[in-house]
Amino acid sequence: MKLTEIIENSGEWLKGDGPHRNIVVSSRVRLARNLRSKPFPGWAKKAERIEVLKIVKSAVEQLPEMEDAYTENLEALSPLEKQVLVERHLISREHAAKGVGSGVVMNVNQSLSFMINEEDHLRMQAICCGLQLDKVFAMINQADSELEPMLDFAFHPQLGYLTACPSNVGTGMRASAMLHLPGLVMSDQMNKIINSVNKIGLAVRGLHGEGTEAMGNLFQVSNQTTLGEAEEEIISRLNDVIVKIIEHECNARQLLLQKKPVTLLDQIGRAYGVLSYAHSISSKEALNLLSVIKLGTDLNLFPDENRIVVDELFIETQPAHLQKGAHVQKMSADERDTLRASLIRAKLQVVPKPDIAKIATQPLGTTENDE
Amino acid sequence: MKLTEIIENSGEWLKGDGPHRNIVVSSRVRLARNLRSKPFPGWAKKAERIEVLKIVKSAVEQLPEMEDAYTENLEALSPLEKQVLVERHLISREHAAKGVGSGVVMNVNQSLSFMINEEDHLRMQAICCGLQLDKVFAMINQADSELEPMLDFAFHPQLGYLTACPSNVGTGMRASAMLHLPGLVMSDQMNKIINSVNKIGLAVRGLHGEGTEAMGNLFQVSNQTTLGEAEEEIISRLNDVIVKIIEHECNARQLLLQKKPVTLLDQIGRAYGVLSYAHSISSKEALNLLSVIKLGTDLNLFPDENRIVVDELFIETQPAHLQKGAHVQKMSADERDTLRASLIRAKLQVVPKPDIAKIATQPLGTTENDE
Repeated sequence: MKLTEIIENSGEWLKGDGPHRNIVVSSRVRLARNLRSKPFPGWAKKAERIEVLKIVKSAVEQLPEMEDAYTENLEALSPLEKQVLVERHLISREHAAKGVGSGVVMNVNQSLSFMINEEDHLRMQAICCGLQLDKVFAMINQADSELEPMLDFAFHPQLGYLTACPSNVGTGMRASAMLHLPGLVMSDQMNKIINSVNKIGLAVRGLHGEGTEAMGNLFQVSNQTTLGEAEEEIISRLNDVIVKIIEHECNARQLLLQKKPVTLLDQIGRAYGVLSYAHSISSKEALNLLSVIKLGTDLNLFPDENRIVVDELFIETQPAHLQKGAHVQKMSADERDTLRASLIRAKLQVVPKPDIAKIATQPLGTTENDE
Repeated sequence: MKLTEIIENSGEWLKGDGPHRNIVVSSRVRLARNLRSKPFPGWAKKAERIEVLKIVKSAVEQLPEMEDAYTENLEALSPLEKQVLVERHLISREHAAKGVGSGVVMNVNQSLSFMINEEDHLRMQAICCGLQLDKVFAMINQADSELEPMLDFAFHPQLGYLTACPSNVGTGMRASAMLHLPGLVMSDQMNKIINSVNKIGLAVRGLHGEGTEAMGNLFQVSNQTTLGEAEEEIISRLNDVIVKIIEHECNARQLLLQKKPVTLLDQIGRAYGVLSYAHSISSKEALNLLSVIKLGTDLNLFPDENRIVVDELFIETQPAHLQKGAHVQKMSADERDTLRASLIRAKLQVVPKPDIAKIATQPLGTTENDE
């Protein structure tokens, strides 16, 4: 499979369906694994990294679920192509900085991706839409079990899996969900939520993980600890917390609708107006306004069949996706802002103006009955 | 004639036509006159003011051009009604604060208005659209000549007409034009213009005269001095300066169109988007965005036949007009903002979205050949 196919098709996590789909953009689990008696990538010499890459890649490519996979060494990718994969959450920002001796393997529907020689020898990720942490854990657990006989993973009987960074030792697992929380942001409750979640050992981060800003009202909630708890317990605890956050978000939306309907309609209307007619728009402003349109869709102001247009714009308006789409390697920020506005104007033409008569009154913004 | 007729009909200065109509919203001249041997309104006792009001009103009502005039004592008007007249530039903010002993008289098309016992016994104003200072001066000069035999004006052979404030002694005349200068504002040239204009003894003020903020890119340029120069000279000098400012404004627009077409289209598009879909909008934001739509019309992005819709919204979205239209005496700022947004949404439906293909390339924003 070629990279263009990855780029031209939305991943399953974006276009699929799942429980609480409107609020939970995606669920994700990644495992960190390392080969016994090989130095961690950060310490390894170039030749050692190339050797590990060869061993791990060959094993991953043999997995039955990786048939017709996209597989590449990082030095073969341009910075722009790597950035496209980052914007799709298929590789990390750190991995995009790697070159010779590192690689990626991902399946057709982008639900499974493997980074070789990122911080660890192998980081494997499963991602799907909605709140389905059990499902993504099952997917990655199966891949892990299939790889186990082929690769000699560094495992310590007391500590568990050994990793380059001590914070990952144990399960080597990070489970997370990307949540769209405009209601909590608009009603100034997000800091309170972040504090409570932190207190129980979970982390809340921005769109692109650690150290990134929350844009588009998107927040990633994940486990912090990897030691002293079984994978299933971590997943179950995280799931419970996310269900609580969804409840809070629904309540916040309900309250906004009851107490500040005009403010809500105003924000949604303005977002639609600006996105429909602007000729220059930054990535950050686009995300923030698209988030409001997404909320408007949850509130029935926009037709549900247009949901995918808006969801795809979240990805398509990112800098690398824009440039890749225009087949331009180098582009100034101004040029990107103009191109972004014209893409949004064009795509948003199918979305009719907000239909106030159809505004939801309750239950809001989620599809709890989907489960 | 009744006040409702004044309120329901745009004045001639708003819906009429005139040279440089796109940039010069209106031309205006007012004369200050006082009766000999009567104390100025600020010093007069109530009975004296009532007497002067009676004398002056009776004379004004006899003018042939004031047939079927709207005439009223200020105590008969509610604060809201007075504010409506202020927003139409038919009376001053100061006059709106007056009650017993003060009055107004204005003609059907709102081109002539007379304030009795404002700062002076009589302040009479002529206003019309476009750059027509000669015409408004002729109008007011005729009214003055017609009143002269009926009223014994305080006139000093050396000083000229005597007025309550020394700054008006002499001609008692203030001539002004309201200019729409978005090009100069967007290209940060307005301060330079204001400084140059001040240096030659003319004043540049905001929308509602002295001490008011410039909103909607509207600026009032007027003479400062009333002594030592004949009326015609003042008018001619002011006219020359305004013609220069129009030139600068046209050049600024041309330059923006050449150097920053995307910024220009972006601002116009965003203004259209926000005005079309907002559900709450302040008076100030409305004026500023309407100003950008007005510029867009000058640049051919909106049909010329919709110009009046936008021009009328400048007046109709003002607080008192909004409330008067809704037949509500008291309204909170929030309620007004919601009502304003809904009025604009409704009215703007007739204005099609910006048609980029039709964008003007030159000569811009004025109708110099109208003259």
